Formats: sequence, C-alpha cells, structure tokens
Amino acid sequence: MKVTHYTDIPAEDVDREDAQGVRMRWVISDKDGAPTFAMRIFEVQPGGYTPLHAHPWEHEVFVLGGCGLVVDEGDETPVSAGDTVFVAPNEKHQFRNTGDEPLEFICLIPHTT
Amino acid sequence: MKVTHYTDIPAEDVDREDAQGVRMRWVISDKDGAPTFAMRIFEVQPGGYTPLHAHPWEHEVFVLGGCGLVVDEGDETPVSAGDTVFVAPNEKHQFRNTGDEPLEFICLIPHTT
Repeated sequence: MKVTHYTDIPAEDVDREDAQGVRMRWVISDKDGAPTFAMRIFEVQPGGYTPLHAHPWEHEVFVLGGCGLVVDEGDETPVSAGDTVFVAPNEKHQFRNTGDEPLEFICLIPHTT
Repeated sequence: MKVTHYTDIPAEDVDREDAQGVRMRWVISDKDGAPTFAMRIFEVQPGGYTPLHAHPWEHEVFVLGGCGLVVDEGDETPVSAGDTVFVAPNEKHQFRNTGDEPLEFICLIPHTT
C-alpha cells in the first residue's frame, strides 16, 4: 500500500507547443506496481490550456478546484469542482482555465497508451 | 464526452454485513463506454467503515474530504483531503471514518473484477 499526499509528488511542466501553463504529477503509475491504469493530477494556470487533441485511449477526470471549459469537437462545457468528465477513445478534447485560480483535476489513463 | 457533477449521480447503499454507513456512486463505468476502468465515489459516515478485505484487483484512491484511517494487514495510516492511496492486488485494506464529517474518496478499479 502506498499513501501519499499529492502535493508531496513533484510537479513536472508539460512542455509542448500546444499547451500553456500546465503542470502534472504522476501520483500512481506502473512504477508503483499499478497493473492497469495511472493517476495523474494536472494544474492549469489562469489562461492556460492543455492540448486540443485526440488519441486512442480514454480519460477519466475529476475536477478538484478552479473553473474552466472542456472543449470538444464543437462544444465547450463549463467545469468546476466536483465535475467528472469521461473522454472516450479518439474523442477530441482540451481543458482551458477560464478563472483566476489554478484549475486542478485528476486525470486517469490506461497503461496501454 | 460525458460531463456530470458527481452529486447528480444517485448514491447506492453498500449493503454488506462487513460495512457500515457506506454509500457509493458509479460515476464512470462500462455503461458509459469506459473500456478499461471505472470511477466510483464513496461516502462513509462518521463511525462507518468499508469491508476489511482483499481481492485480486487494485484500487487507486484520492481522498476528497473528511478524515479517517486506511487499515492494512497490521498498520493504520491517517488520511484526509488530498491523500492518495494505491492498494495493490490481493492486499488487505479498509477505510474507516474517524472524524465528525463524512469521509469522501474517489476509488477506481479495473473492469476485470
């Protein structure tokens, strides 16, 4: 069993041209012996955004705090604390911070990425 | 894409002799088309507890609020908001609420249960 406060895990910058103001923590991963899926926690600064992209694996997301938009192929849906988002495989998606505080969310992915 | 506030999903009582004061919500599951793993949110009332048991699948947990203990084979570890717990396959575990408020946590499992 591994018990860790998420802020005790170092945050890494997401250094991509199509992302801005994004950091992530690998909270539970295959390095911990997790056999199937991984838990990451993202922090998006005000005005920041994750890539607008699609990929063959799903996301399961829980918003911890802040407020923003989840962008789909054509829609934008507001999200804030307590909202959950299922992004199906190959579905286009992006998370944008539209507030004044960091937008924080948990995002889980399968190991088969 | 499915966006839902977790409190909009009905909570079900966990009706087992070895659990007390536990409700859960299936937030994202195979019914939503999730291919690999499921997100559930648990609410344990003050004095309540989940079963002390083990099974062949893992848990990935994020504590949302309240305070309690994670019980292992021989250890008890305090947990509160922001703590994450990885329970490996076949590892004995239990969550106990030791506070005055509900203990709420996200708990993810693979579909192969």
